[in-house]
Amino acid sequence: MSRTGRRPGAPETSEAILRAARRAFGDRGYEAATFRSIAEDAGVDPALLVHYFGSKEELFAAALNWPVHPVDIFGGLETSNTTEMAEMIVRRYLSMLDQPQVRDAILAMVRSAVSNERAARMLREFVTEEILAILGRITSASDSELRASMVASQLVGIAMLRHVVRLQALVEATTDEIAVLVAPAIAGYLR
Amino acid sequence: MSRTGRRPGAPETSEAILRAARRAFGDRGYEAATFRSIAEDAGVDPALLVHYFGSKEELFAAALNWPVHPVDIFGGLETSNTTEMAEMIVRRYLSMLDQPQVRDAILAMVRSAVSNERAARMLREFVTEEILAILGRITSASDSELRASMVASQLVGIAMLRHVVRLQALVEATTDEIAVLVAPAIAGYLR
Repeated sequence: MSRTGRRPGAPETSEAILRAARRAFGDRGYEAATFRSIAEDAGVDPALLVHYFGSKEELFAAALNWPVHPVDIFGGLETSNTTEMAEMIVRRYLSMLDQPQVRDAILAMVRSAVSNERAARMLREFVTEEILAILGRITSASDSELRASMVASQLVGIAMLRHVVRLQALVEATTDEIAVLVAPAIAGYLR
Repeated sequence: MSRTGRRPGAPETSEAILRAARRAFGDRGYEAATFRSIAEDAGVDPALLVHYFGSKEELFAAALNWPVHPVDIFGGLETSNTTEMAEMIVRRYLSMLDQPQVRDAILAMVRSAVSNERAARMLREFVTEEILAILGRITSASDSELRASMVASQLVGIAMLRHVVRLQALVEATTDEIAVLVAPAIAGYLR
């Protein structure tokens, strides 16, 4: 295994643990998702979680990091103009949210962050280091970090209302319908 | 009784109504919880609910200890143009989030909604009937409900990243700095 912080072992076991962890963090939040309950869901001994991931915080990070790479949403856009960039960001993000595995990870992050300061800090560091850093290179304004944060806030708000609160209009809207409305807003932030 | 918007009366009666309302909204959701059924549960005449709380919206707000009335953010805007409207919505919303009591209530609602399907349903129905209804009157587009949902998603995202995740740039930004960036995005949704 090449992944930083992950100890060597049978890939299928660690994948099963990660899947169970994503579900557990997503359904119950960081605090309530115990090693024991995740191990039970994954059908493994709790000691294996320690063996593979060390701590709950590391398991959380691994569970969340694994399927979502910010560069998949925000990378390789520097050559486009602002309008094209905005539309690509929105479309890539929405198509990621349509994949249950990725959606689970994002919702796990959000659910955990609202109920636990440690998870909020991890999400904050993740967004700041991974997402704002990329977006900050796209916009050259002096308030680029605030502008990048506004992009993130619009994307997080869509995930919240489409997949957690499930506002009917947002649930029923297609990716195209949402992208057409949101892209100009995102473009405004990136300008 | 010192509580704003609550009319004087026997405290035990209004407490009984609030308990019944919390149960009713929680169990059946905002829409199905009628004044009549709540009055029945509380063992009082429906007229007393009107006497104490005025409207279902105010009863819901009181039951949740919810100090925000959508009309305070979204009301009385119909006479402005779209740009002015958007700026007023953002400024009113941000100044509400700056009041600890209001912020706590909003975050409590978000926290409940992300971890509890019943709370998510209550929030969904509340947003749909009270907020989207007002915003739907502002925009005349055929996709007005989706547009109103996009406004809500941007506002929810700001609360999440400014007050829960606490992204540094958003925490440090003034109301003015945020309003200047967000108002054009909101105006785009309302057009």
